[in-house]
Order: sequence, then structure tokens, then C-alpha cells
Amino acid sequence: MILTVTLNTALDITYRVPSLRPHTSHRVTEVVERPGGKGLNVARVLAALGHEVTVTGFTGGATGRIVQDRLTAVPGLVDALVPVTGPTRRTVAVVDERSGDTTQFNEPGPTVTPAEWSAFQETYADLVPSVSAVALCGSLPPGVPVGAYAGLIRTAKAAGVPVLLDTSGEALRRGVAARPDILKPNADELAELTGSHEPLRATRDARRRGALAVVASLGKEGLLAATPEGRWRATPPTRIRGNPTGAGDAVVAGLLSALVEHLPWPDRLTRAVALSAATVRAPVAGEFDRDVFDELVGRVEVTTDVSAA
Amino acid sequence: MILTVTLNTALDITYRVPSLRPHTSHRVTEVVERPGGKGLNVARVLAALGHEVTVTGFTGGATGRIVQDRLTAVPGLVDALVPVTGPTRRTVAVVDERSGDTTQFNEPGPTVTPAEWSAFQETYADLVPSVSAVALCGSLPPGVPVGAYAGLIRTAKAAGVPVLLDTSGEALRRGVAARPDILKPNADELAELTGSHEPLRATRDARRRGALAVVASLGKEGLLAATPEGRWRATPPTRIRGNPTGAGDAVVAGLLSALVEHLPWPDRLTRAVALSAATVRAPVAGEFDRDVFDELVGRVEVTTDVSAA
Repeated sequence: MILTVTLNTALDITYRVPSLRPHTSHRVTEVVERPGGKGLNVARVLAALGHEVTVTGFTGGATGRIVQDRLTAVPGLVDALVPVTGPTRRTVAVVDERSGDTTQFNEPGPTVTPAEWSAFQETYADLVPSVSAVALCGSLPPGVPVGAYAGLIRTAKAAGVPVLLDTSGEALRRGVAARPDILKPNADELAELTGSHEPLRATRDARRRGALAVVASLGKEGLLAATPEGRWRATPPTRIRGNPTGAGDAVVAGLLSALVEHLPWPDRLTRAVALSAATVRAPVAGEFDRDVFDELVGRVEVTTDVSAA
Repeated sequence: MILTVTLNTALDITYRVPSLRPHTSHRVTEVVERPGGKGLNVARVLAALGHEVTVTGFTGGATGRIVQDRLTAVPGLVDALVPVTGPTRRTVAVVDERSGDTTQFNEPGPTVTPAEWSAFQETYADLVPSVSAVALCGSLPPGVPVGAYAGLIRTAKAAGVPVLLDTSGEALRRGVAARPDILKPNADELAELTGSHEPLRATRDARRRGALAVVASLGKEGLLAATPEGRWRATPPTRIRGNPTGAGDAVVAGLLSALVEHLPWPDRLTRAVALSAATVRAPVAGEFDRDVFDELVGRVEVTTDVSAA
């Protein structure tokens, strides 16, 4: 059982319109709704890979009920979301069919009360001892203390459970100091954390700040990993075109699933890159294309990073 | 008791954003949700005026539950909405705080099945005999026959209950032939129905097509009424600035409330104009400002239309 934490869950709504014209009225031609928030996306990919996953975080109101109804329909996925009074936020992505471009509107989400935050911490502490790995994913909702991830990392480490952190900004800065087993930043998050836009230097610096291993996702250049066992680059065999939504969450799912299967680092990175590419290529944002994954997993190139010598 | 019919109910969501920039991501600074659809707006104004109102139409899914929860919180309002399988549509209005302009996205709404349409007609036929007036408002959802309003008008007339129609396009064209007691088109709807952009000529023509009385809402020029008792113009005393959302629904509520209070036509028009202006002036879209209403109701100018002589 893997545990994913999504403190800022969402109902992701996608609208298709023939052409976006600001300050006019649009008839939406297609509406797609799905549970959102990085940890829920990671959980869906893990479940599709055949892993049992428990999801926790916060849920509230009518939108929260829709999110939970959808999650319980996913085989292998256990709902341990903690109720809050305010309604789970919506995100609305408006896709312009003419250009393919997306215009995004993100609601702020409910403010979590101190009592709700305490209730979550209890639930989390009860769940952690029986899982094989934990993923802490995404932004913090209003009301949750900025050091939240640091505390959750310490709880996992005290229970001897490996923990991966995927967040940004101050939550990332505070979290990394609590020594997560794996940090999964993208290029921007890594640069913001370390002040360096040079990935090799930045991953080394992120390890010095506390992360045991750092796996940076560098878009089309694949992954750069700095770990206690060595340093690697993993790159997809071809330039993958498509929708990058959820590609980073697929990397997290790939890393975690391979971790609990006790695969060595090069195999973890191979799986993560192939899953990420198969997500970019899938017709539905955030899903992954199984055939593309099966085809790519044998063709990802993993090289030992000689510059680390 | 007044009955309002809203076949295409909605959950109206308003987002405020600092500035709308197409093809970028926006943090929404304020979210406001309210039940929508013209008949529900009319019902809210009627309830605020102290009238008892029953609302019917269709409701479904999680969005429908939110709409119903909000409606039952309104004193004097009775929920007789008929369940459908598909979810009630959302509308999303994005207000650009810099320019004040609104960009609107309207979901299509659920397709109503023949069985659901039959269930509605039964509910409607059960309600009509015990009410003092009926308002049929707004567009028809997918699946409802285009002649729907004509049938609902005939049912009301057979029960001796006065009926007002406020819709557009083919639903209006088919509905007017069933001889509604009052037709409430705006300038565009009237022109589309009659082919004439000259309101005096067009209101006369709409009466020839079947409407017993026609009250055209002409924006800042107020109302133009052609009735069996005479022809009138009613104009607000000053140019009213603000948000016109819901101004037409306030006209309907004004006309209907004054009808059931047996007021003469000039008083009905005075109330409708004052309510409409008080809605434009209100800070919340679709609400009306009670003080502005009380102040304006004594200052609306109603003139007998001499050109009708």
C-alpha cells in the first residue's frame, strides 16, 4: 500500500470552446470533470499500474463529494480524505479548439481550520505505519502552516517509511530541511530552491539542503537524478509531443512504484521517464497511454552522470 | 402563490480575476455561486417582494443539489423541481477587475429524456390549478420539444390561470401562438419574432401573433406595453448605471407581482421599471437594491402611447 497526500484537492473541469473571445459569451461544446490535485493524479497512475493506494488530504462540500464519488470508482484506490467545512476548490481549464491553447482559472480553495489540520495529522499518523511509501504532493491550502510538509516528513521517517516530496516555494524550502528520501522538483522549482539555473549544480545543492535523493524533471530532456547510490540522466528516445498536464505526477508514480518494488535507481528512472512520456502522448490530459508506455520502457536511455566523478 | 418554470436551471458561478489574459493561468480572487436560470431569478425577486412562489423545472446531479440547497434557504420559496439524471449545467462568468468586463462560459446542460419531460408535465399540471399566475422563463434544454411552452400555456389557460412567457427564438415563436396573457421580450427577441426593429410596430405585430399583452423591455428606454386596456411607455427618471444582469427577470417579477395584486397596467409597469433599475444598481448581480426601488417607484414616468390612437 502506497499513501499519497493531497492537501489541496480539486475538481478539475475542462471546457472546450470553438474560439476564446474575451468579454463575450461562449457556448461550451464539451465538459470533462475529474478529481484533481497532484497527489490524486499520482494515485490514479499508481492504481493503473496495479498498486494499492490510499489517498488522504482534505475534501469538502458538493465539489468534494464529486471528487470522492469519482475516486471510489477507481479499483485499488482507498479514500481516506479528511472532511473540511469549506468546499473543495474547482479549477476550470478552457481549451480553445482553434489554437489548442488553454486558459486556466484556479479557485483558491477553502481555508483549513486548526482543528481540521489536527484531524488530518491524526489520520496521517494512523495511516503511515502500515504503508510502504508516502508521497506528499502539491501546494498547501490556506490555513495549513507553511512547515506542514516538514512535520509530515518527520512522522514518516520516524515510522521508517520512505517519503517523496513534490511541492514548490516556501513549502518546498521548509520541507527539504526535514530530509525527505526523494525530492522531485521541476527545473523552475529547483532553481527557486537553490538559486541556480544549472541543474547539475542545483541538484547537488538540493541534496546539501537535506534531500537524500533529488530527481529533477527537466521537460523534454528527461530526468536528472542525484542519489546516495550515484548520479544518472534518463532521457526519452524521441521528442514526445502532446499535453504535458500530469507528466510530473507520472514521474512521481513511476519513482514510487519502482521504489516499493525494490528496483535499482536506473530502473526507477526508466519507468518514470516512460510513464511521463506516455502521459504527454495520451489523448486525455493526465491519463497515460499504456501502449506507448510498454513501447518506450525498453528504449529509455539511462547514463551515469560522469560529471559527478 | 405564483409558479415560475425554469426548464434550463443553472448554477451560476462568478469568478473575479485581476486581469483576464487568454492562454495563461489565473488565480481566482473571489468565487460567488448562486442558483441561475431566468425563472429562478424571477422567483427570488418575487420572494423578496413578499410573495409566496413555487419553482419548478429540472434539477440533477451535484450541481442540482447545490441549486436546491440554496433555494430552500430563501423564505417564501417552495422547491418543486423535477429530478433528471444528467447534472444541472453550470455557467461561469469571469469578471476582469481591471476593465469590469465579463467573459461568459455556458455549459449545455443535461439532455432531458421523454420520460423526464412527461414527469415534468404531470408535476406542472398538478401545480397550475392552485396558483394565481405562471411565468415560463428562459431557454429549453436539449431533449425538450420546441413546442414545449405552447403546451404549458394551454394547460395554464385551460385552468384559468394567467401565464407570462419570457423566452427567445423558436420557443418564443411557437409559444406566442398559444396566446399567453403576457409576452415579455427584449428588443432583440421582439425583432427576431416579428422581423421589425421598430418597437411600436413590433409590439402590435406580436399581439397579432397571439399574445394578449406585450411588454417589451428596451434597456435604458424602459418598457413599451401594448395591452387590451391600452398602450403605455414607462421610463426610469434617470439613466441608471450598473450591471444589467437580471434586469429583465426583475421586470417579469414586477409585472407578475402587480398582476396578482390586481393593480392596473400603469402601476404594474411602474413597479417593473423601478425593480429593473434597482437591479441594475445593486452591487450583487441579479439582486435588487431595496432603497433604490423604494426611491424610484414614485418617480417612474408612465405615458399613454398617443401613437396608438
